[in-house]
Amino acid sequence: MQFTMVPMNLCLPGKPVDVLHTGAWTAKAIGELKKGILHNIAASTEPEKFTRLPRPEEIKFSSHASYVHICTNNTIEGTQWTAPPETGPKTGDVPLVADMSSDIASRPIDVSKYGLIFAGAQKNLGPAGVTVVIIRRDLVERADKNLPTLLQYRTHIKEKSLYHTPPTFAVYVVGLVLEWIESLGGILAIEKRNDAKARLLYDAIEASGGFYRCPVEKSSRSKMNVVFRVADGVGRSAAAQDGETIERQFVKEAAAAGLVGTTGHRSVGGMRISLYNAVTLEAVEALTGFMREFHRARG
Amino acid sequence: MQFTMVPMNLCLPGKPVDVLHTGAWTAKAIGELKKGILHNIAASTEPEKFTRLPRPEEIKFSSHASYVHICTNNTIEGTQWTAPPETGPKTGDVPLVADMSSDIASRPIDVSKYGLIFAGAQKNLGPAGVTVVIIRRDLVERADKNLPTLLQYRTHIKEKSLYHTPPTFAVYVVGLVLEWIESLGGILAIEKRNDAKARLLYDAIEASGGFYRCPVEKSSRSKMNVVFRVADGVGRSAAAQDGETIERQFVKEAAAAGLVGTTGHRSVGGMRISLYNAVTLEAVEALTGFMREFHRARG
Repeated sequence: MQFTMVPMNLCLPGKPVDVLHTGAWTAKAIGELKKGILHNIAASTEPEKFTRLPRPEEIKFSSHASYVHICTNNTIEGTQWTAPPETGPKTGDVPLVADMSSDIASRPIDVSKYGLIFAGAQKNLGPAGVTVVIIRRDLVERADKNLPTLLQYRTHIKEKSLYHTPPTFAVYVVGLVLEWIESLGGILAIEKRNDAKARLLYDAIEASGGFYRCPVEKSSRSKMNVVFRVADGVGRSAAAQDGETIERQFVKEAAAAGLVGTTGHRSVGGMRISLYNAVTLEAVEALTGFMREFHRARG
Repeated sequence: MQFTMVPMNLCLPGKPVDVLHTGAWTAKAIGELKKGILHNIAASTEPEKFTRLPRPEEIKFSSHASYVHICTNNTIEGTQWTAPPETGPKTGDVPLVADMSSDIASRPIDVSKYGLIFAGAQKNLGPAGVTVVIIRRDLVERADKNLPTLLQYRTHIKEKSLYHTPPTFAVYVVGLVLEWIESLGGILAIEKRNDAKARLLYDAIEASGGFYRCPVEKSSRSKMNVVFRVADGVGRSAAAQDGETIERQFVKEAAAAGLVGTTGHRSVGGMRISLYNAVTLEAVEALTGFMREFHRARG
């Protein structure tokens, strides 16, 4: 819904939306903008198959954009903006809009750097069905009051998110998750925990001498979704008699060891390990242990 | 959301939406139509304070409407369409759109009489946060494909309601409620149960000789929300020393007897008893018993 609501509420006449195109989620945003909204792809790493984020010198902002759209964590491609791109002084203080659906509450965020943040709760904050929106007060007033009432951010602020009938159970569980985060020591402790999990897994990949290989450039790697290939990705294992690839065998044996959900998104293949808040360090240790054993057996 | 999506998807150029205005929920629908959508109030019982539904001879349909909008059950005013108004032959088969948020699954419905039915689940079907939409296949194709993807009904059909991230827990509980309805004997058994509950309460009101008074015309009375006044509504009880009205005293004493939620909507005052599926006949018996006792003590 935010791919629709954000341009509806924040677009200024004649001023395009600048998008930093980094994968499937910005592609969704662009898909909605293509339905008649002025926009500009300020940078795209599609030619690199989204294996890295755009470098500062590659970004061509419009002279007068309505806002800049980014996705802070790209779940399918395994990239993450550790610091938001600079959209300030040079571009006349254009508000930065961030889709944080897959890394909100995984680390501290300097909210003042963003004009609008939106995030589906279902990765790090709670069950499916709730979206969190944080918007700078002054931006709320950009929206035409003739827009459908429910699609104006000002309605939800004025009515304290009760203009519609919200998914009460899901909202309640988000509250419990926030209490759980507090109980672990707050967002700084969560960041530490997430850093340790990601480091452990990337180190295991790097230590495999190329048996496991992360296609993502080091500075762009996500701490939420770690993508990697096994061997050459299609290489047959010595043990495989039925034409299955080594990656399919990895998935099968991992599942047998209780490690499920290791398959990468069908659009990119390979492996994908999601390290959202609920995943423990112990779970990642079990995975890296399995990875070493899987490698050793084929070494 | 449906107040926005229905006109977006079903309006034909130059053809107005005909609304049968029966209370707060059709007022919400009209509020959204006023944001630039051609519409016509085909009938309104606002002069009667919505204490009845429009009579057939009062309804003035447009010659070529896009669709007719009704709310089958008006929660605040306590009225209900037992049979849908005829929008067929005379009006060139204009589709009937019904907001059934507060009476879906309370009785059998002849779905073939409607072009589109929508209903928030939170009254009779499950927890807050899910909306059910039933739409006639051919009407889906009226929508401009350039509308935001999420706001087109065709998207949700094509993607089996998984284009967005749905509120999974609420959807799951709807499934459990449907199983519960089956276990009671299905929708016919539910209707019987709801009829008995409503009859019991309306009979208690009528039997009070005017101490309790339902302002709604008999043929328009809702089986889901029974509204009534106590005495003259503001008359002081003999026992009240602190200026409180007899209705406030009713609410207080009912609550003390374990009967909560008897207050009418603030916009109309008085009492309102909701008899949604989850309410048992025993609960209504407890209420009518309390009502007789409350009356007797002041008789």
